Amino acid sequence: MPTPNAYAADCPTRVVLDRIADKWAVLLLGLLADGPLRFNALRRRVQGLSQKVLSQTLKGLERDGLVRRTAFATVPVTVEYAITPLGATLAERLDLLRDWAERHIAEVQAAQARYDTAA
Amino acid sequence: MPTPNAYAADCPTRVVLDRIADKWAVLLLGLLADGPLRFNALRRRVQGLSQKVLSQTLKGLERDGLVRRTAFATVPVTVEYAITPLGATLAERLDLLRDWAERHIAEVQAAQARYDTAA
Repeated sequence: MPTPNAYAADCPTRVVLDRIADKWAVLLLGLLADGPLRFNALRRRVQGLSQKVLSQTLKGLERDGLVRRTAFATVPVTVEYAITPLGATLAERLDLLRDWAERHIAEVQAAQARYDTAA
Repeated sequence: MPTPNAYAADCPTRVVLDRIADKWAVLLLGLLADGPLRFNALRRRVQGLSQKVLSQTLKGLERDGLVRRTAFATVPVTVEYAITPLGATLAERLDLLRDWAERHIAEVQAAQARYDTAA
């Protein structure tokens, strides 16, 4: 494989970057970094995330090897999601993004107000 | 303002997280972190990015106070984009994402192959 380069349109890195640079991935891996959770618990804790998008996002994360899905033979079936060691290395970095957004939101809003006034 | 919390659907942090957790923002701020660049230079260096999406992404970054746009009265007008100090604090963190994607792409592809085989 040539040297991975996200600036090249045809590098597989680009596709992966697109999936991990995603607000839902940031929020979900952030939760799973603290321990396994069931589908419904994830859904409750990430407000505004629909069942469909949660399901799609988890499937993508599972396919990329970042999350492991385990089904338990309870009635009804219980499905639990856990972060993988690979996912944990990413979660650390994603958490810095969430932290940045929460830490700098006041400055961003001030900039938006200035921009909208000037426009 | 209540404590910023990206897990709350109505927190403004969520909107900002959505804009910064974006592959184009990652790639563009990564370039601008090294110095100001003109629109066309950005477009050339991020392969596969259309003029329209580049323009929209830069506008969002400018509105959030992450990038500063300067027009010079040349003929034709020259427009240059520079990262702001606030944007530089973010670029450091975004760069860790691009780096993660480039560094772990082989592991991710192996996981994808396992997933697709099992499916």
